[in-house]
Amino acid sequence: MVTSHSVAAARPQGVVSRRRGPVLERAILEAALDQLSTVGWNGLTMEGVAAGAQTGKAAVYRRWPSKEDLVAEALRAALPALGEAPDHGSVREDLYQLCRRVRAAMYSKPGFALRAVIHECDSETSERFQALIVTGVTDPSKRLLEEVIQRGIARGEVRPDAPGDLVYDVIPAIMMYRAKVCGSEWGDAEIAEMVDRVMVPLLRR
Amino acid sequence: MVTSHSVAAARPQGVVSRRRGPVLERAILEAALDQLSTVGWNGLTMEGVAAGAQTGKAAVYRRWPSKEDLVAEALRAALPALGEAPDHGSVREDLYQLCRRVRAAMYSKPGFALRAVIHECDSETSERFQALIVTGVTDPSKRLLEEVIQRGIARGEVRPDAPGDLVYDVIPAIMMYRAKVCGSEWGDAEIAEMVDRVMVPLLRR
Repeated sequence: MVTSHSVAAARPQGVVSRRRGPVLERAILEAALDQLSTVGWNGLTMEGVAAGAQTGKAAVYRRWPSKEDLVAEALRAALPALGEAPDHGSVREDLYQLCRRVRAAMYSKPGFALRAVIHECDSETSERFQALIVTGVTDPSKRLLEEVIQRGIARGEVRPDAPGDLVYDVIPAIMMYRAKVCGSEWGDAEIAEMVDRVMVPLLRR
Repeated sequence: MVTSHSVAAARPQGVVSRRRGPVLERAILEAALDQLSTVGWNGLTMEGVAAGAQTGKAAVYRRWPSKEDLVAEALRAALPALGEAPDHGSVREDLYQLCRRVRAAMYSKPGFALRAVIHECDSETSERFQALIVTGVTDPSKRLLEEVIQRGIARGEVRPDAPGDLVYDVIPAIMMYRAKVCGSEWGDAEIAEMVDRVMVPLLRR
């Protein structure tokens, strides 16, 4: 106690006292996301993250022993919540609004970072992230889709045997595929087309 | 002429004379695919490819000035043909057989290599490969899907307004998504489930 007080007293006020504990941790996690967004998973280094957070490499390694641990924590902390399921009285409109939210999440900083991890990791590393992807991304979006589809069933718009994991995967699969393979940026018109040409025919009675 | 003859004569017979022109080129392209399958796009180096082809780095650079050029050529030369559209008298069976062929292509050596390129390239590099992916992979598989669907329309199984790019993207999108995000290996039962739960409801009248 006495020692740490005297060390702090020996340094200029301000920066040092602000950059302790949770605040420093947040700065490191934020720097990890920045690195993922700019240089990707393969380009990210513990040194680069430390530099980005204006701290030393030891401060990073003390908290996260590996790049994988650090990135998993950074993603877990930052992944955007998708909110409550939209409820506009029609499955078409609800799916359209839900896809716009998925797009916003995809193009957010943690969304870019997560896609960098998914796309760039070799299969061994990406297995380590699958649980995170499932609990942080696919499960929450599935829950919203399920709610939208169940309401459609209750209204008689959607066939009762539609729900299922493969059906829930269609939207994220097409959105990721076109973003990667065709460089699509998913404008509103393209989202509406996907809802009208794929999801509505797939779900209707 | 005289010089090259005398050089060949000065070396042991066999290897040197067999490793000229197209044969050496094929060995280099094959080594590039091997590298992509084992160390991925990011791990591939011109040195590694030269070593794999048991030739010198200069022999590689003389033909392909960059890693991008080499990989594009290697993929173009090796991508498997999907063959003629299956024709078993039902859209369900035809789609099932077509998906099994897509799976075989995905898990072939050039298929792994192409996925390494798609997943690992940063967006700038992957733009350079998009034309190749379109002409070598998505266009041919779309043509087969279109044929299968048009025959289904002629038989009255498929609704006439079903055909369209977004509908053709559903199968490759889900197959790539589950392979990457859930580590799926697409056994026959999973393919059948995708056809029955997604494609048949999406296409039927």
